[in-house]
Amino acid sequence: MPEIVWGINPVLEALKARPDAFKEIIIARLSCLPRWRGETGGKTGKGLNRVLQTAREKHIRTTFKDRGALTDLAKNHRHQDVVAILEEYRYAKIEDIINLYKSQKEPALIIILDGIEDPQNLGSLIRSAYVAGVHGVIIPKHRAAPLTASVNKASAGALEHTLVARVANLASTINYLKKQGIWIIGTTMEAERTIYELDLGLDVAFVVGSEGRGIRPLIKRYCDFLVSIPMKGKISSLNVGVTGAIALFEAVRQRQFS
Amino acid sequence: MPEIVWGINPVLEALKARPDAFKEIIIARLSCLPRWRGETGGKTGKGLNRVLQTAREKHIRTTFKDRGALTDLAKNHRHQDVVAILEEYRYAKIEDIINLYKSQKEPALIIILDGIEDPQNLGSLIRSAYVAGVHGVIIPKHRAAPLTASVNKASAGALEHTLVARVANLASTINYLKKQGIWIIGTTMEAERTIYELDLGLDVAFVVGSEGRGIRPLIKRYCDFLVSIPMKGKISSLNVGVTGAIALFEAVRQRQFS
Repeated sequence: MPEIVWGINPVLEALKARPDAFKEIIIARLSCLPRWRGETGGKTGKGLNRVLQTAREKHIRTTFKDRGALTDLAKNHRHQDVVAILEEYRYAKIEDIINLYKSQKEPALIIILDGIEDPQNLGSLIRSAYVAGVHGVIIPKHRAAPLTASVNKASAGALEHTLVARVANLASTINYLKKQGIWIIGTTMEAERTIYELDLGLDVAFVVGSEGRGIRPLIKRYCDFLVSIPMKGKISSLNVGVTGAIALFEAVRQRQFS
Repeated sequence: MPEIVWGINPVLEALKARPDAFKEIIIARLSCLPRWRGETGGKTGKGLNRVLQTAREKHIRTTFKDRGALTDLAKNHRHQDVVAILEEYRYAKIEDIINLYKSQKEPALIIILDGIEDPQNLGSLIRSAYVAGVHGVIIPKHRAAPLTASVNKASAGALEHTLVARVANLASTINYLKKQGIWIIGTTMEAERTIYELDLGLDVAFVVGSEGRGIRPLIKRYCDFLVSIPMKGKISSLNVGVTGAIALFEAVRQRQFS
C-alpha cells in the first residue's frame, strides 16, 4: 500500500529524506493558486512554492486536483493544500542500526518500543528519539502501531530521518543486541534504581512499554537493568513519550556533559 | 460555567482532590447496570462501582441518564459511562505557590507556560509538572488555553492536585517572582548554553513557550538565563511537552542525584 503524506512540512521533510520514494505530489487547484505563486505571500504560499520547486528539481510528477480530493486522501486531516503519494515506508534492518553506531564510532543509543499502539505516542517518541540522536528505533510487528502517515505527521517529519526496524520476535532481537554488547535497560515505574544512577555512556538500548500495561513481563525478564524515573505525588505516571524522552536525554547528558 | 469531567479515572481523581466542587455525577442507565453492580466484573464495572461508592460516602448527588446524554456532555469523547459536573476550576494565586515551597522548605520549582494554546499539550505539561513535584504552574490569561475538562483529561487527573495560577500580565508576574529570589530560566532552541550547564538547585521558574512561536520576545527579555536542550539532526525541535518535562526532571536530578 502506498503511503500518503500531507501538510507542507511533512512533505518537505519527506522530499529531503527520500525523494526517490515519491510517486506523485498533488496540489489543490485554484483556491491556492495565487498563494503558491507567491502573489499573496504568506507562510502557506511560500511553503507550497518550496514544495513545487523541489518537485521540479527532483523530477517528481505534480498534479492539481480539487481541494476535496486532497481532503479525502488526507482522511480529513489538515493538509494545507498539499498531499504526496509515496512508496510504502521501508523499515530498516537491525543490522543497519548496528552498522550506523559502529560506523559513527559512538556508543549505541537505541530505543525499543514494546507495544505502543497509539500513532501519536509512537510519532512523538520517534521525534524525541531523532532529536536525541538515536541510532535506531525498534518496534514489534504485532500489537503495536505500524509506521503510517499519522505516525510520520506526529513525528514532525523525524520518521523520514530515523532508522526504524520492525521485528517479529522482540525477545530474540534483544538477545541479538546483547550479543553485540548492548545493555538492555527497561524503564518501569516499580524499579527502585532510578535512571540517574546508571552509567549510560556504554552501548545501551532503552525499552519503553505501552501506557497502561508497561513493558510485557517476558520482555522485562530479558532486560539487564530495570530503572524508574523518580516521581512525586499521588498520580505516579508519566506519558510514555515523556518517559522515553527523559531516558534518552539522560544518556545525552551523561555522554556530553558529565 | 460549570466544569464537565468524564471517564472513570478523571472522575475518581477529582473526587479525591476536591469532592466539595461536585454538583452531580451522572451514570449511564441500563446498559452498564450489570457492570457497575459488579455482576459481570471487569475494569469498567469495578471503576464505576468505586465512583458510586465514593459519591455515596461524600453525599454527592448521583443521577442516571441515557448514554446519549452523557456522550453529549462529554462532547463525544470516550466517557466510560460516567460524567461529573463540577464547579468551575478555581485558579490558585501566585502567593499560594510561594507559600507552598516556603512551607515545604524546598527550593522553588515552578513552570511558566507562555501561550500554550493546545489543551493536549497543556494537560501533558501539567501531568509532567505534577509528577516532577512542581510547586505551581503559571499560565497567562490571554492567548493561551484555559483550564478545561479536556486539559484535566489530558493531565490524567494531575490538574486536580496542582496549583495553577492564571495571570493577566506575565511580565509583571515574572518581576514579582524575581523579587522573591526566584531565577527565571527560559528554554529556547537558540540558546548556546544548555540546561545541563546551569545550577538548578536554587529557586527556579522555567519558562516554556508555545510550539512554533516559542517564548514571546518580551518575556524572553525578562528571563535571567536562556538555555537550550542539546539537539541532533536536521529537525531541531522537540514537542513543547517534552521540552518542559526534560527541564523539570533535570532540576529533579540535580536536586536528588548530584
